[in-house]
Amino acid sequence: MTRQILALAGGVGGAKLALGLAGTLPHDALTVAVNTADDFEHLGLSICPDLDTVMYTLAGVANPETGWGRRDETWTVMEALGQIGGETWFRLGDKDLATHIERTRRLRGGESLSSVMRDLAARLGVKSAMVPMSDDRVRTMVTTDQGELAFQDWFVRLRCEPVVKSVRFAGADKAKAHPTLLDTADLGGIVVCPSNPFVSVAPILAVPGVQAALAKTRAPKIAVTPIVGGQAIKGPAAKMLAELGHDVSALGVARYYKEWVDGFMLDAQDASLARDIEALGLKVKVADTMMRNDADKRRVARDVLDFVDDLAVSGRHS
Amino acid sequence: MTRQILALAGGVGGAKLALGLAGTLPHDALTVAVNTADDFEHLGLSICPDLDTVMYTLAGVANPETGWGRRDETWTVMEALGQIGGETWFRLGDKDLATHIERTRRLRGGESLSSVMRDLAARLGVKSAMVPMSDDRVRTMVTTDQGELAFQDWFVRLRCEPVVKSVRFAGADKAKAHPTLLDTADLGGIVVCPSNPFVSVAPILAVPGVQAALAKTRAPKIAVTPIVGGQAIKGPAAKMLAELGHDVSALGVARYYKEWVDGFMLDAQDASLARDIEALGLKVKVADTMMRNDADKRRVARDVLDFVDDLAVSGRHS
Repeated sequence: MTRQILALAGGVGGAKLALGLAGTLPHDALTVAVNTADDFEHLGLSICPDLDTVMYTLAGVANPETGWGRRDETWTVMEALGQIGGETWFRLGDKDLATHIERTRRLRGGESLSSVMRDLAARLGVKSAMVPMSDDRVRTMVTTDQGELAFQDWFVRLRCEPVVKSVRFAGADKAKAHPTLLDTADLGGIVVCPSNPFVSVAPILAVPGVQAALAKTRAPKIAVTPIVGGQAIKGPAAKMLAELGHDVSALGVARYYKEWVDGFMLDAQDASLARDIEALGLKVKVADTMMRNDADKRRVARDVLDFVDDLAVSGRHS
Repeated sequence: MTRQILALAGGVGGAKLALGLAGTLPHDALTVAVNTADDFEHLGLSICPDLDTVMYTLAGVANPETGWGRRDETWTVMEALGQIGGETWFRLGDKDLATHIERTRRLRGGESLSSVMRDLAARLGVKSAMVPMSDDRVRTMVTTDQGELAFQDWFVRLRCEPVVKSVRFAGADKAKAHPTLLDTADLGGIVVCPSNPFVSVAPILAVPGVQAALAKTRAPKIAVTPIVGGQAIKGPAAKMLAELGHDVSALGVARYYKEWVDGFMLDAQDASLARDIEALGLKVKVADTMMRNDADKRRVARDVLDFVDDLAVSGRHS
């Protein structure tokens, strides 16, 4: 059997590496487990931002400028919705809306999220497996200086402006993890994509059984830094590191992950942090982690897989 | 107080005359009560074909070619929906979808259909009042040679092909009529638009209290023929007349309405039927009822209102 890789991903950054991995590994060797705690109900529709970003990216139909949504998108429904007084702060393109409409219809009909997404992804031509972290409802709630906010209220409507004091994942304690996240025994490697540690990766770990399954497996677990040169490539990861009291650096992220990952992939710009991260007990690989185009994504994926192999070998010899 | 006109309308034909009346009467003198038994849930959305046709027509944003849907429409969502295996037999344009999405969201939030439609119509610039026949769920079911079918299955999906044996209005017995339909005492006239007698007008009459309120008022009740030269201007009215055992003519419609209307407006092409319709006990007015453009619609509306006035005078003298 081919070495099986499980990638944990959030939205844009996760999707980029997932695409690189999908372009490098055999189709049946990759499963991307995606955060669903960003999901929300809006306009009566079930919106799954991270799942859709990963799906559209793997399908080659993602918007190359935003990283989310679909390419060659139009906005007719949103404009008409504005005309009749509907809410338009969360921008949903016309093609993208078809996904939300069809998913919502099928979920209401009793189908599971993983089943719906498997079918939608297949229809769009996605070859690798992508699964929601859970079929059950988990919702990121952000406690801020303006009170507790639902994630998308904070993230999109208020543009991440309220200062974050803490984050919790409502419903996580009762959610059932997707079986892929629990069945880790035979995995060849676990890759934590360069996603937001607090609101993309942490919710996956918050689902009961996931941490235990990750602790038990012998597969190398490596995280790719979402912070380069003290800044997030995209999104509020740097702002959250600061507001939650962490070092705003790859070192801050490595400290946050150190209890459960084996290796940390650091950007070449931050090579000077390698020693401090190794001092945490982690293996470090320094590489160019910036993914500007598809060739970059495959290159980073190859570096990640080489790192997995290195750790697998050293693991067997230790 | 201005003479108040209540128009009973279904979709395209009803909307045409409603627009003519709206262009002829003061805004506060017209209420259009619209059939909702064609409504259905599709793609998880609450679709109200007749209400929307009337609303778009009165707002001047209706598609002039189809009579339903919005002008300058695009179909991006439908195409994307087809790509992911969704149902596309009921064509919903992008602009039109905004209406369904916003209505569905508000109905799910507990708002009444009449409240939602009042607001949506106002947002689109509709000045006259338009109300659903009821806020409660009524659904036309068509018994055919292929069994009982939900109306839109028969009408759109199967293109009216199955032979109609009978029609019923599920839920009508428990529906509460819109107050406008019950508060008929001070009306100046009731106009039955040239809509399908069996599936546009009959459902309105099937709501408890409506027939009694129409029987009680002294306001003249006149119907405009939906059949000209033995054919329906649009839709399956002629086919239904035949299959339900009626004369496929304006006379057949007049017979169907004779128990409760006072006057019947006949198209000039069918002038030879005037005597037979008068023999039913109805007053008859012969006019050009074809509404090809907005000037036509206003002309027919003026003829209708003159007919109402004639009957009001003759009523007072009788």
